[in-house]
Amino acid sequence: MAETLCCINPGLYVGSRINHSRPLLKCRSGGGGMRRVVVVNMSLSHHHHHHNNQPYWAAINDQIQTHLKKVVTVKDPVSVFEPMHHLVFSSPPDTAPALCVAACDLVGGGGGGDLALAAAAALQVILAASFTHEYLPLSDRPSLMPRPGPGPIGHHAFGPNVELLTGDGMVPFGLELVAKSDDPDQNNSDRILRVIVEITRAVGSLGVVDGQYSELQCSQLEGNGSWHMDLINNTCEKKEGGLHACAAACGAILGGGSEEEIEKLRRFGLYVGMIQGTLLRYLPEKRSIRVEELRNLALKELEGFDEANVKAISSFIEGNLSRV
Amino acid sequence: MAETLCCINPGLYVGSRINHSRPLLKCRSGGGGMRRVVVVNMSLSHHHHHHNNQPYWAAINDQIQTHLKKVVTVKDPVSVFEPMHHLVFSSPPDTAPALCVAACDLVGGGGGGDLALAAAAALQVILAASFTHEYLPLSDRPSLMPRPGPGPIGHHAFGPNVELLTGDGMVPFGLELVAKSDDPDQNNSDRILRVIVEITRAVGSLGVVDGQYSELQCSQLEGNGSWHMDLINNTCEKKEGGLHACAAACGAILGGGSEEEIEKLRRFGLYVGMIQGTLLRYLPEKRSIRVEELRNLALKELEGFDEANVKAISSFIEGNLSRV
Repeated sequence: MAETLCCINPGLYVGSRINHSRPLLKCRSGGGGMRRVVVVNMSLSHHHHHHNNQPYWAAINDQIQTHLKKVVTVKDPVSVFEPMHHLVFSSPPDTAPALCVAACDLVGGGGGGDLALAAAAALQVILAASFTHEYLPLSDRPSLMPRPGPGPIGHHAFGPNVELLTGDGMVPFGLELVAKSDDPDQNNSDRILRVIVEITRAVGSLGVVDGQYSELQCSQLEGNGSWHMDLINNTCEKKEGGLHACAAACGAILGGGSEEEIEKLRRFGLYVGMIQGTLLRYLPEKRSIRVEELRNLALKELEGFDEANVKAISSFIEGNLSRV
Repeated sequence: MAETLCCINPGLYVGSRINHSRPLLKCRSGGGGMRRVVVVNMSLSHHHHHHNNQPYWAAINDQIQTHLKKVVTVKDPVSVFEPMHHLVFSSPPDTAPALCVAACDLVGGGGGGDLALAAAAALQVILAASFTHEYLPLSDRPSLMPRPGPGPIGHHAFGPNVELLTGDGMVPFGLELVAKSDDPDQNNSDRILRVIVEITRAVGSLGVVDGQYSELQCSQLEGNGSWHMDLINNTCEKKEGGLHACAAACGAILGGGSEEEIEKLRRFGLYVGMIQGTLLRYLPEKRSIRVEELRNLALKELEGFDEANVKAISSFIEGNLSRV
């Protein structure tokens, strides 16, 4: 069985770039605050994960990668786009973009497939920006969280100045990918603007940035009291939870889902994202109960959708659960 | 005469927060690569600047400040919004947002006044994010440019982690301000999406970030050869030039200007922004010729617009020129 072992920091993981069959992480508890993650190369191990619906997610991730390769190229000015290209394609894969496309499928697509792909690619670019800044070496203060290493994350191909600037360029670039996917003839500008607000909220001050603050405060706390748990839960809710909630809601919006479908898929995304966060941050002994709770909540949100399509998207949870 | 003396880095300046009468900088050549800027408190010195149309710009800047105070508040999560509030209101004022409102006026407004204010506020937030990251203390590598100081810029109220995160949250927050200004009943989603693309391009990889790279390369070069001049010109074009071009184009789009008007105002913004950049980066002996050239190009773009309104917006140049 082909396995890639790597150190991991809360909230973010690294895997082989060849692995397109996310969400397929195995998480094992490690020493200290650090956990080790085994990224399973599904194409070699699908007999262990027959619930994972691997071809479905692999196809979606292939589409997203193809789209990303088309829109993120090394063009002029090369000094800007070379590091951006590197950072986008060397950042760890994330499962949120695929959920965006799957949510669009679930509500029937409604001609929104290309828009969902554009939004998924944008999310991947913006997540790469967030990852880049999260691991930027800063002076004067300790890092936001312990730097991972040795290993792929520990290596910086560019200096911190270039990483900082490139990260700054990537967020607007990602949002531009969404805004440009507008086709005035299709009369879907309203949906696209709504998706832009969804993404800016999820990645901004009330979303990932809030989660990062919680994580920062958490890392400065001793003990494991109730305030500590509140911070961990807020981190899971705002980082993985918020991003998956956003991705699923965006897919549903672009696929023409009803308001009820959008909100159900948003909650589904929230819970499955929080499962990921829980697996990364909870102590092993407390993990199972919380995950089971979130899993049931997530599955409940899928009730009422077309059963054949539910099977595909619900396998997202099994992919997460195979980590416990 | 009340003057605030402060050190300045290329491309950005600091002034008293009380000074709402931008664009009203006086620039003096200083030693080395550093120049000193005198911010003139216009309310005490308007007899020296009768061309500046001070009440017009002061009124616009007041409106922008009022709007900013309404949308950038210290709300929950306080750990995020308190530093954001601080960084937005302590960043140096920039003249681009006011140009957005003035350009909207010039093309007749067309009910787009509130939208232009929202876009101007968004620009100010995003410029503050850019400023914050530009002066972030980084380890491992020298700063992008010499840190200014002592003085207001040299002081960091928050640690670099918090500044980095907050800056990350500010770009999406700014774009959200634009996206949220959409009123589906007004049927102007297309204009707003176009403005979002304008802003993402101006601040992103092809815009400010590209200008910052040029500036970084420039700071690492010896001498004053033609490649050096190309880098300086690219910095002026992408930073101040691109931002003012974007601001003016956004105002024209939101005010319902024709395509010709939008492009004329975009070029007007480009030239007046480049005048600012030239004043900051050119050697004193080369400055006047270049500024005069840009000034003539800028004024040419205003031909054909309503003469009464042209007087107001063209005073932007006089504000810049009073710096020479």
